[in-house]
Amino acid sequence: MTTTTDRPAQIAEDATAPTRLQPHGAVAERSAASIDADPQALRAIMDGRWGWVRDELRATLPAEYCHPIDHLTTDEQRALTSERLVELAKHGGHLTSFATDVGGTADVGASTVHFESLGLADLSLTIKAGVQFGLFAGSIQALGTADHHHKYLPGAMDVSLPGCFAMTESGHGSDVASLGTTATYDAGTGELVVHTPTEKDRKDYIGNAAKDARLAVVFAQLITGGPGEEPENQGVHAILVPLRGEDGKDLPGVTTSDDGRKAGLNGVDNGRIVFDHVRVPRENLLDKYGQVAADGSYSSSLASRNARFFTTLGALVKGRVCIGGGALAATRQAMAIALTYAESRTQFPRAGADGEVTLLDYRTHQRRLLPLLARTIGLGFAQDDLTAELHAVQQTVLEGGTADPEASRALEHHAAGMKAVATWHATAAIQAAREACGGNGYLSENRLPQLKADTDVFTTFEGDNTVLLQLVAKGLLTGYRDSFKGLDTLGRAKKITTTVLDTLAVRTEARALAQRLAEVNPWGEDESVTLLDRTWQLRALAWREARVLDSLVARMRTLARTEKGFEVTNEVQDHMVLAARVHAERLIAESFASAIDAQPHGPERELLSRVMDLHVLSGLEEDRAWFLERGWISPKRSKALVATVNDLCAQLRPQTQTLVAGFGIPREWWGAAITA
Amino acid sequence: MTTTTDRPAQIAEDATAPTRLQPHGAVAERSAASIDADPQALRAIMDGRWGWVRDELRATLPAEYCHPIDHLTTDEQRALTSERLVELAKHGGHLTSFATDVGGTADVGASTVHFESLGLADLSLTIKAGVQFGLFAGSIQALGTADHHHKYLPGAMDVSLPGCFAMTESGHGSDVASLGTTATYDAGTGELVVHTPTEKDRKDYIGNAAKDARLAVVFAQLITGGPGEEPENQGVHAILVPLRGEDGKDLPGVTTSDDGRKAGLNGVDNGRIVFDHVRVPRENLLDKYGQVAADGSYSSSLASRNARFFTTLGALVKGRVCIGGGALAATRQAMAIALTYAESRTQFPRAGADGEVTLLDYRTHQRRLLPLLARTIGLGFAQDDLTAELHAVQQTVLEGGTADPEASRALEHHAAGMKAVATWHATAAIQAAREACGGNGYLSENRLPQLKADTDVFTTFEGDNTVLLQLVAKGLLTGYRDSFKGLDTLGRAKKITTTVLDTLAVRTEARALAQRLAEVNPWGEDESVTLLDRTWQLRALAWREARVLDSLVARMRTLARTEKGFEVTNEVQDHMVLAARVHAERLIAESFASAIDAQPHGPERELLSRVMDLHVLSGLEEDRAWFLERGWISPKRSKALVATVNDLCAQLRPQTQTLVAGFGIPREWWGAAITA
Repeated sequence: MTTTTDRPAQIAEDATAPTRLQPHGAVAERSAASIDADPQALRAIMDGRWGWVRDELRATLPAEYCHPIDHLTTDEQRALTSERLVELAKHGGHLTSFATDVGGTADVGASTVHFESLGLADLSLTIKAGVQFGLFAGSIQALGTADHHHKYLPGAMDVSLPGCFAMTESGHGSDVASLGTTATYDAGTGELVVHTPTEKDRKDYIGNAAKDARLAVVFAQLITGGPGEEPENQGVHAILVPLRGEDGKDLPGVTTSDDGRKAGLNGVDNGRIVFDHVRVPRENLLDKYGQVAADGSYSSSLASRNARFFTTLGALVKGRVCIGGGALAATRQAMAIALTYAESRTQFPRAGADGEVTLLDYRTHQRRLLPLLARTIGLGFAQDDLTAELHAVQQTVLEGGTADPEASRALEHHAAGMKAVATWHATAAIQAAREACGGNGYLSENRLPQLKADTDVFTTFEGDNTVLLQLVAKGLLTGYRDSFKGLDTLGRAKKITTTVLDTLAVRTEARALAQRLAEVNPWGEDESVTLLDRTWQLRALAWREARVLDSLVARMRTLARTEKGFEVTNEVQDHMVLAARVHAERLIAESFASAIDAQPHGPERELLSRVMDLHVLSGLEEDRAWFLERGWISPKRSKALVATVNDLCAQLRPQTQTLVAGFGIPREWWGAAITA
Repeated sequence: MTTTTDRPAQIAEDATAPTRLQPHGAVAERSAASIDADPQALRAIMDGRWGWVRDELRATLPAEYCHPIDHLTTDEQRALTSERLVELAKHGGHLTSFATDVGGTADVGASTVHFESLGLADLSLTIKAGVQFGLFAGSIQALGTADHHHKYLPGAMDVSLPGCFAMTESGHGSDVASLGTTATYDAGTGELVVHTPTEKDRKDYIGNAAKDARLAVVFAQLITGGPGEEPENQGVHAILVPLRGEDGKDLPGVTTSDDGRKAGLNGVDNGRIVFDHVRVPRENLLDKYGQVAADGSYSSSLASRNARFFTTLGALVKGRVCIGGGALAATRQAMAIALTYAESRTQFPRAGADGEVTLLDYRTHQRRLLPLLARTIGLGFAQDDLTAELHAVQQTVLEGGTADPEASRALEHHAAGMKAVATWHATAAIQAAREACGGNGYLSENRLPQLKADTDVFTTFEGDNTVLLQLVAKGLLTGYRDSFKGLDTLGRAKKITTTVLDTLAVRTEARALAQRLAEVNPWGEDESVTLLDRTWQLRALAWREARVLDSLVARMRTLARTEKGFEVTNEVQDHMVLAARVHAERLIAESFASAIDAQPHGPERELLSRVMDLHVLSGLEEDRAWFLERGWISPKRSKALVATVNDLCAQLRPQTQTLVAGFGIPREWWGAAITA
């Protein structure tokens, strides 16, 4: 029932509620409206560590790649996207994804930012590139060994070998462990027999499968056994299976078909694949984490089937990081269009004055767009931190080393949470941008329809968001169990708070702040502190996370006394999703705070600090029922929260063009007639 | 930042909160899960007063009209839609819109339900029919006189005269009073000179204008004066202006162009029109409410320019009623698809049991879809009441009488509020349905992409929702001023409550209930009453409305002491929107309650009553921060609200297919491969 514009009541209607910001030292006394930040300096901050990648793309990507293509037929869009992919490969930005021994330039962070930045342009191309270089070639890089790398990666990198990543099936998307496709080893011929047992086991939604892919990385249950052993299911493995010949026709035993028209991303040819006992040599198994000997014996350095499964999937985490980044890039573009239009468009005479009112002067319009802008900026910093974390874990691997298992696990959870939050944000923000541009937002020439349609599936692919958040919650519960064994309720509460604060200290490098937090009674609340106090803001987020997780555990324990299995987790499923979400929100705020702390004092830092206020407070405002229910804020303070958000919107309203400039989107890329 | 799936925290985590429904007489003790309602009987109730119109369409509309057409090119979609419009006209369902003297069958309610039901099928056709029969022919019917009716309506009705409704301009959409197009009377030739002074005064987004329309109803500032008088702007009037000849080419002085591809509704050819001193005979003025004599004298039965403007626009209110209805029909279809898929699709093994879990058994999935289903059903009853109100006001006019001005004004406000609420609901619900179907929801073959893309602009056209809600709020403020002059705060509060309750009594015809409401202290709250108590629910909605309106007035009074004009209304703009929204919510709940009260006791009534519980309580849950801030509910009760919504979802889960059957959508209309 909630859309971005049909939101629950947010009205500070009580005359007793403060309607202006309370003073908070020199910074808060100064209205954000008067800060004179330099757009270029702001851009440099928002570009982050891999700014050179963004600059390179700004300099080389043809502007026409950013113009809508949704007036073209499906076939035309596909042909154009295929062409552009080859062009893109010539520019070489994707080479950062690959090890140097196959001609790559091996920079994980750079390759992630390259993908992200493509999201400002043609999203069909972005996804097609993601399929070819990221999923297809990336899984050969991550799950294969030297022979696979040398044999296949050069062709994958220059697109002379178009490929696909055949994981999802019609009957199994989120539940990869239950995939139905089988790969049975035949020791007699030394071949793996790849087969689709039933209709629901057919591969589905596979990018590149309808038309272009000649080779597929197929995820299947590997069934094999050594001499004299009963063949056994060794779990899901990846196997290279040729799909089409040079003539583009399906090879014997392979039947591809077309998923047809989609809501968006019609430049990508998604399709279905059915295998009828297709035989491939044993060497086609991507065998980094599990090997089949000629006699059928299975071996792996990883102890359990479960460990192999999670290691295999963990190696593919980059895809999720990239999707969140691409979603944010598209969101930046949509925000830039809607905010710029809102500066130029007027409607209705101004009461008591000449002329008409500019859209962005309306409070409802500010309310619709500015919190979303603030959040887009905050998520950008969080995405940068996630990219750095990905780089720290995977760069070693790309250079021939081994990933740290604990760091890998932490990364997976961060990536899952961030992907869910960033893609839902994209869906909501692009929708709001469309509506805020009225009829103009519905015309293809203004690009918003394409941005909306193309990004809509981001909440689904690379992991359904609701499922991903449950994965995050399970990680939190495991961490909780490990840390708090034997503690009573109060002990647990204290421990969680301390842990959260420790993490905070490490991540923000603002130890003094954390120290101050720790000194405050974590269950108490001092309402004399202004809402603009960063300590108060971060404490609210940390306390919420701790409290939600603790009560989740308590509920699960109570339920486990009378219910079992599915009933227990299902009864608290929404609570689990909440735990994951508030965890992600804390991390985002910390990234934002940390990015601000890293800047020297000056107008850019000051402006970003006000933007962070709006981001955090509008988030707390949305969730204020939860805080009220638990007595963390008083009704009076809750109303003050609403009033403060209104005030921050008004203060930041004159800064929107500076902030949009911070996104650094070349003007010729905007592709919207209304802002041309 | 909010999407339907990324909602604020709704967790009843406190062990002290009740997690099961409290008993409330025999009805509430019985779980909704066990009610054995008859789908056909339910359908008859939900079909409402004009069920025969729905039945006629079910029997005659070709099923292929319901299949997605978004794989076709823009030209192909337009050609198909034009063809279908002619076919549709042959069936004659639209004749109910017109008076009997021109061959119509004059049944306002039936014509509205006919349009609404078309929303289950091809939405391009629905909108194209709305443009031709509703906006174009409808404005001739409503604003023209007998000569216009006889000369133009027969051709408009059989589509031999395709037309358009040229109101919106590039620079003025919501602000119709400020339109820039002029129509200047030249007494020398007896002609009106229609002209586009500047680029932003060109007509824009006009349906049928890019390709088909031969005649336009043009809204323009009429400038004329009698002999010896200075020509004067008489305000916005409607004038018939021929656009194209029989050859389809623009006539001299007319330049049409194409708005091109859109997010959806690509079967409708939206375009732009520029007039360069186009001359039409004086008789082309649709002169029901204002006439120009041959000598240029202007006359009108309506006293002021303002009165003429609002009467003119008021006569066109049916369009808004229809858009809300069409949005709801599309929503029903999307809900039907997502809920039916969720019954068939399984994912993840069921812990502690065999087999996999059906999607709709997951709490998060129930939470995503069932409150939206309940609201879709509730809005259906509200839409029926609005249609009946429209019928009561306009049927007289169609039969040659005059509309009651007060009833017309009330209707306009109801229609504006309902249009906003219903179309935002459609946007949110169809988005949720898409996401709930995962990758399948993104494929055109499953129809959700088309439903989403086609309805997305419903929040914009026939009045931007945010602007419409401000119109509603202004109506509420006027009513407030008229009623409460001279009362102090307490007196006002009592008066509002009484008025709200009076209306309630009339509308629900449940006087006993209203009586009980009136006896309860309206500012108090008895927490021993179960949340399933209908009295409590309606009282909460009525109290919220009264309180929001009263505090809005108080704030405006305070502000008016120091600020003026735009600043006053802008400072409370979000408050005004809230006042309108909560007003609409109360009306919707009353319609729902009234529809239930009208049924005999039995399982269908019982089931609908539980659906209404879910509708009302999930709405209150979303807004519970507001109730908490004002002390209307305690934190404990607020948590109970969340737990009760969870429980109602679980209870209604086995009833979803019965409720979907109540929508009465012929199975061959669904047009989704996943539910075929």
